[in-house]
Amino acid sequence: MRDFSQDHRWLSINTATVRKQRGVEQPLPDIIEACARRGIRAISPWRDQVAAAGLSTISRLVKTHGLALSGYCRGGMFPATNAAGLQAARDDNRRAVDEACELNAACLVLVVGSLPGALAGKAVHKDIALSRSQVHDGIAELLEYATVNHMPLAIEPLHPMYAADRACINTMEQALDVCDALDSSRSGTLGVAVDVYHVWWDPKLEAQIKRAGKERLLAFHVCDWLTPTTDLLNDRGMMGDGVIDIPKIRGWVEAQGFAGYSEVEIFSTATWWQRDGGPVLDTCIARHKTAV
Amino acid sequence: MRDFSQDHRWLSINTATVRKQRGVEQPLPDIIEACARRGIRAISPWRDQVAAAGLSTISRLVKTHGLALSGYCRGGMFPATNAAGLQAARDDNRRAVDEACELNAACLVLVVGSLPGALAGKAVHKDIALSRSQVHDGIAELLEYATVNHMPLAIEPLHPMYAADRACINTMEQALDVCDALDSSRSGTLGVAVDVYHVWWDPKLEAQIKRAGKERLLAFHVCDWLTPTTDLLNDRGMMGDGVIDIPKIRGWVEAQGFAGYSEVEIFSTATWWQRDGGPVLDTCIARHKTAV
Repeated sequence: MRDFSQDHRWLSINTATVRKQRGVEQPLPDIIEACARRGIRAISPWRDQVAAAGLSTISRLVKTHGLALSGYCRGGMFPATNAAGLQAARDDNRRAVDEACELNAACLVLVVGSLPGALAGKAVHKDIALSRSQVHDGIAELLEYATVNHMPLAIEPLHPMYAADRACINTMEQALDVCDALDSSRSGTLGVAVDVYHVWWDPKLEAQIKRAGKERLLAFHVCDWLTPTTDLLNDRGMMGDGVIDIPKIRGWVEAQGFAGYSEVEIFSTATWWQRDGGPVLDTCIARHKTAV
Repeated sequence: MRDFSQDHRWLSINTATVRKQRGVEQPLPDIIEACARRGIRAISPWRDQVAAAGLSTISRLVKTHGLALSGYCRGGMFPATNAAGLQAARDDNRRAVDEACELNAACLVLVVGSLPGALAGKAVHKDIALSRSQVHDGIAELLEYATVNHMPLAIEPLHPMYAADRACINTMEQALDVCDALDSSRSGTLGVAVDVYHVWWDPKLEAQIKRAGKERLLAFHVCDWLTPTTDLLNDRGMMGDGVIDIPKIRGWVEAQGFAGYSEVEIFSTATWWQRDGGPVLDTCIARHKTAV
């Protein structure tokens, strides 16, 4: 297992971590500059942040600073209620692959979606099996495009508390079943993003990380689970402030040969988004050394 | 599958559903009277409610009204940091079995506990595997006492969002692994409480209900998952107001031979606890007919 205690060379910042300071959207170029000033070598930006600044601008900035992208957030949201909706998702996901290629991302992260309408508070139906079937088909099709474009797809199993509205793939086992079905040769173009926040509770986690193996372990995300957790979406903790044994999970992942970045991804309305971005990045660097 | 549309003979009320109306604790005798007046044939009370009114009082009231107990809430909370703590949990769980026997409950529901201290916001350690081991041992020991006393123990797998503080058994598969390990003969004294709120998201749910079979399906709890869910603990929905396909899950359970009560268990600070208990019970009866 790599020693993280001396430096932060394997730290990546998911740019959502410092995007909403005191409710004000922070421009992605500013976030990139702040990361670069601190010797942070990798980021993972969101599509809407990139779009707001312009893809070519971000592409140039990333190159200027020699930054790597540990991932690109995000593709997915496959389910829909009709053919037009499925087609729109397909088209949008292909654009996401194109952007990820332009930015030279390590992978496109997939948050696969679930019951249509649920995210807006009004699910159109309750048939999660149907959504899972649409997700399977959507990934299958996108995988062809991703393969041609050499852009790995990382299915991110989300915590079961997001099963209704954000992702109907909720365990590593389930994600890996999809990988096995669609990429039996373990090509490296389809795998998983392991976010400790989503999977730490799973009694089968260690076994499924082993099952994934190096070829399918495409990304590793860290933050912490707070007790109590006061909001289902935006109350993630800084590494070390919660109950997740992050080093143990990192050990399992690295035992399989994973040698990529540990990407910090914290959505935190009440705590970390209430501070200036700079000090938050400094805390990420410090905790990366002591709690990851 | 039984037809629930014509009457509510298979409705049970978990008494937490109407215990905190407008923040005021409702005495259990009043709740029992309100249920009996409506022809509700079963309840599932909580130990603290019973203790507040007196065990003998509740026992008498239950008999007077000819009420069944679909379950008794609850035993469990096995993990501790030292031998004294483990012993205290052991003793308390035996008392819970005694009370369940006195009330002639169908089963004692087990919410097994997890990281010591986490429920109070300060986990003593992060070793969930250790807690799981303590839970395994605690159930093993309690099972001996429960067997002698003919009181079935129903392990309730809780939603993974409670894995830190309330229960480290989080899937049906995990609960049934414990059942298989401790009661390989399928004696009927160890099984599971299937609460749709906790397990609806699980892609292996149907298969695990089949695996459980009639001998291990000891209780069936209903409510609904709202989108959005605004509180991790106390924002459960009334059946029909959320995204869970309850009839489908009830069909799976009944296909295995389950013929017990559908127990309504709703914790709802913002909605159902803001109304008088009577109308809430009336709504439970109505939704039991249309949405369960």
